[in-house]
This record gives sequence, structure tokens and C-alpha cells, in this order.
Amino acid sequence: MKKLINNPTVVVEEMIEGYVKAYPKHVRQLEENARALVTAKETCEGKVGVLIGGGSGHEPAFMGYIGSGMADGVAVGNIFASPPPDPILEATKVIDKGEGVIYIYGNYAGDVMNFGMAAELADLESGIRVGSVLVTDDVASAPKEEKEKRRGIAGEFFVTKAAGAAADKGYNLDDVVRVAQKANDYMRTMGVGLTPCSLPQTGKPSFELEENEMEIGLGHHGEPGIEKGELQPADQVVDRLVHDILADMPIEKGEKVAVLVNGLGSTTRMELYIMFRRVEQILSEKGIEIHRSYVGDYSTSLEMGGASVTILKLDEELAEFVDHAADCPMYVQK
Amino acid sequence: MKKLINNPTVVVEEMIEGYVKAYPKHVRQLEENARALVTAKETCEGKVGVLIGGGSGHEPAFMGYIGSGMADGVAVGNIFASPPPDPILEATKVIDKGEGVIYIYGNYAGDVMNFGMAAELADLESGIRVGSVLVTDDVASAPKEEKEKRRGIAGEFFVTKAAGAAADKGYNLDDVVRVAQKANDYMRTMGVGLTPCSLPQTGKPSFELEENEMEIGLGHHGEPGIEKGELQPADQVVDRLVHDILADMPIEKGEKVAVLVNGLGSTTRMELYIMFRRVEQILSEKGIEIHRSYVGDYSTSLEMGGASVTILKLDEELAEFVDHAADCPMYVQK
Repeated sequence: MKKLINNPTVVVEEMIEGYVKAYPKHVRQLEENARALVTAKETCEGKVGVLIGGGSGHEPAFMGYIGSGMADGVAVGNIFASPPPDPILEATKVIDKGEGVIYIYGNYAGDVMNFGMAAELADLESGIRVGSVLVTDDVASAPKEEKEKRRGIAGEFFVTKAAGAAADKGYNLDDVVRVAQKANDYMRTMGVGLTPCSLPQTGKPSFELEENEMEIGLGHHGEPGIEKGELQPADQVVDRLVHDILADMPIEKGEKVAVLVNGLGSTTRMELYIMFRRVEQILSEKGIEIHRSYVGDYSTSLEMGGASVTILKLDEELAEFVDHAADCPMYVQK
Repeated sequence: MKKLINNPTVVVEEMIEGYVKAYPKHVRQLEENARALVTAKETCEGKVGVLIGGGSGHEPAFMGYIGSGMADGVAVGNIFASPPPDPILEATKVIDKGEGVIYIYGNYAGDVMNFGMAAELADLESGIRVGSVLVTDDVASAPKEEKEKRRGIAGEFFVTKAAGAAADKGYNLDDVVRVAQKANDYMRTMGVGLTPCSLPQTGKPSFELEENEMEIGLGHHGEPGIEKGELQPADQVVDRLVHDILADMPIEKGEKVAVLVNGLGSTTRMELYIMFRRVEQILSEKGIEIHRSYVGDYSTSLEMGGASVTILKLDEELAEFVDHAADCPMYVQK
């Protein structure tokens, strides 16, 4: 697959360099560790730090979400691979303002290990309290009874948004963790994959699908989904995705939700709007109110083709946090 | 090519439906014409109206740019085809607040004809003054001596931004036109294409390139570029693009610019940041200051692979307008 890159072994370094140069008012790279980025704005003493991160290849996640009302720091891994503890730890030390730091990351073995080690080291070396919330929104990745085993995908945006808003409002660490955990608990995502991406270093497709095939529940790194079949019209695909979400997390008539229709990379906004149209039809028929909508590329898998639907159920507190202002390079909300 | 759509003949209608449902606080569809969208916010009497538009398939352009500090109305055409005069005219009538309306659109025969007819009709039917600025930023599409023949591509974002800011600040129509024209005159874009897109109705690729080929100067609708050749490393590609821009529009040491690295659809943000990194290196070596940067999908060609670099030279007035706040569904600036 053709890519506009230089040396495949340094794509992440060159990407970070470009990113930091593009948004010097928003982000800065730590001298202590080139894979640790923090907000360029001064955050106030006593604010809980919000740290996110994971493998590269999901841009604009995660580095695009550094900014006020969202994350204070990001640890950047290699493509589809967790960052080691070092950048996590270094970012933690910088963004801690005396009230501790929350780690938000997807539930993948590597991330669990590395963020876990960093949390221990932060406590041991610097006495920094760390709370962790694992994102587990991917309905297709484990049965309902084992939600804690599910992978984290596009919904990480909402967990970060909720935690970022809570921290911005001066909540203490326990409360920021509680809010982030609630956002994760109140949220489900279902996705569909159409075409693979390829890693810069191998140039090989990450999985194979036939010319007219789709895969329901395909993971963000090409992990197998739950069903392969002939590509259906968008409405039928969305019906299936939303059905699976609502079967897993019932939503009553009159309840409010936030919706994210996320593109995986090469799927056009035209398709994403057509999908959103159907999500809106279904929810509106059920009397469920869409409080706020997000349509676009929020968390990609390089140039993978496909999309996901995330529904976040809103109580009063979460609605307030979803509405909270944010100012990141890749996401600004007034 | 696989697409998440329903009936290919109504993709534009379904896209607009989804878009309007997703952003009801930002946009509304006119009852008079379903292809005419206007801002949902009340604009004040005496503000010059800013109307943009063109073919679909370039999302988030053009409908994503409706909002304060940007466009007040958009006329939506079929895929890669100009809208007819009707939606342009209907949107014009709604957004005119007594001080006239500026039309900003890319220099394509169909758009020139249809926006031209709408402008005449607006005057004849409703006595609305219309000023027009054709965007001609694509260096590769005609020689320097015939700049007025060039096509408009990603740079339309900057022309809309400048005009939207000027209108927001209460400039009269002549001055909004002057500012928009200056933005166009002070701006150049060069692009590279890697992989084709396909139209929903045909499913056929819009052009052909070999497995390891790129095309410099390829147009937004697959119009032939100026040079086909083997895919080069990103730095060399960017060197070529920026070289051609600066040869066409010299920029002196100490001058300020805004830079847009735009993805055509399936090119990853990782690649765009790597490209931006090189743009910054070149300009910084020449002592040219990047005042503000934009990296992402601002104007696509469905799922085409490739990217473009736009450089806008800033005088004091344009710098102020580039910095002006904007609040659109696809673009918010504080």
C-alpha cells in the first residue's frame, strides 16, 4: 500500500515532530522522553491530571486530544503497540498538580501492563496517586457477562471528555475516576470493517476480506469480529450495530444519549452521515433523545475502511460534561 | 469499491439528511430547496452573507463550513458536479441581510455558470447585490501567466475563512470581496495523488495509477496532473510541492504564512503530520514564519489517496482574519 512516509522505522517520531510543530500553542514534547506529550498551557495547581495514550495509528487519537477540557498528557506507543512505562511516567510527573492523575486507556494486555507499571512507579518514585479507568466499549469483543474483558475502541473519546470536564471543574481524583468509570459503563460501541490497513513497516494488509465482504465487530487492530458476510446497505448495517448495542445496554424512552459515528480511516464523511441518519431514525423512533452528535474520524486504524457507532447514555452529570468546552488541536467545542 | 451507502442515486440526499440531523444547532435545510443549507443561528441585519458551495464528495467541504465566522449558506451539488442556480438563489435570499452576499466557489465551468446565473437572478428577482470570488489556488492546473484559469482546491477553506471573518467584523460587500480576493491572490496549493476514488453510482476508479506511482498536481476530481512518476519519500514529495508553490509565489524571509496540509480522503493523519513536518523545515530554513497551521481532511475527494499543501501569505489584515474565531460543525476555532 502506498504511503507518504520516509523511513518506515521512524514514522512515529516524524509524526510527533510534525504534530508538535503544527500546534506549538497546544502541545509540547517532553525533553525527558520524546514519546511523552503534555499540554503547552499552564494547568492550575490542584487540578487532577488526565493522561491517555496507547499505540499509534489511531490518529487523531490520542495526541489530538491534548487540551483544556480533555487530556493533559499523552504517551505515544509504536503503531498498534502500547507505550512502555517511561513516557507514561514522565508525563505523569509533569501533569500532576498535587491531586493525582487519572490514566484512561483501552483494555489491551500491553496497555494494562505498561500503564499499570507506570502507576506503581509514579507512586514509588514520586508519591503520585494514580487512578485508572480501562475503556471497554467494544460490544463485539466479549459477551455481556464479561464486559470487563472487552476491548476499548472509539468510545475512549467520551471517557476522556467526561474525565477532562470533571477535572476542569475541580473534581478530586476519586470523583474524576468515578465519572470516567460511569462514562465507560454507560457506553457501548459496535463497528464494521470493510477494507484492511497496512503497517508502514510491512506494507501488508492487516486482515483479508473478499471484494464484497464486511466484518461486523472487527477490532481496531484487525482483531477478528463476530460475523463475516456480504456487504449490506448502510441502513441494514446500522440496524445491526444499533441493535447489538441496545440489546447489550437497554435505553428507555425519554432517555438522553450522545452519539459518535466514527470513521476508521478511509471511509468518507458522506458514508458516516448516511450512517448517522439511520442511527437518528432508530433512536428517534424509540423516543430516545440525541443530546449531542459527533460524526467524523475520532479514532482511526490507519487507512482501514469501516466505521463504528458509539452510544453514551447520559444522566445529568454526564450530559453536563459532554457539553463542557474543550480546546484540543483535533477537537474544539464551544 | 465497497461503500457504506444505500441507494447510490440518493447518497447526497441521505448525506444531507444525516448532516442536518447531526448538527441542528448549526445548520438548517431550506424548505424551498433541499440542496440549500443555511446557518441555524440568527445573523444580524447588515452583515454581508457568505455563500459557498459546489459538488459533493469533498466533505467536510462545503457544508461543514457553515457557522459563525465562516459561511452563512451552502449550495450542495451532486457528486463532483456544480449545484444548479436554484439552491444558490434560495440560500442567497435567506442569508441576505440587506448588505448583499458574496459567492465563493472553485473555478470550474459548471460552478461559474450556475453561480453566475444565480447572481443575476438574485439581482433581477430580489435586488440583492452579489459579489463573486473564484478560487484559483491549484498551481498545477495552469501556468503562472494564466492564474485566472486555475482550478480551486483546498485553499477555498482560507478564502471562506477570510471572507467569513471580514463579514463577521461588519465589513461591507466591497470590502469582503476585496479581502476574499486578496486571500485567493496570496495563496497557492500543490497536491499529489496516490490512489483513486470511485463514484457511488459507477463504483469505478476515477483514474488509474500503477501500484507504486504517484501523480503530482492531480485535480480534486481526478483531472490529470503535471507529472506521473514513482512514489517518492514524503520529504521529496513535499520538497517538490513547496518548491512549485514558492516558484509561483515568492515569499520573503520574515514574512508570515498560514499552512494547510490537506488529506484527500484515505491518507492518514500520520502521513499528513509527516508532510507538515517537512513543510515546516523548509519554511523555517528560509526564515518564513508559520503563523497558524491546519492539518487534516479539510477538502477531500471521496476516498482518494493523496494530499495537498496550501500556503497563504499573510499581511496584517489576513493574519487577523485567520485568527478570527469560527464555529462550524467541522471546524471550530477559539
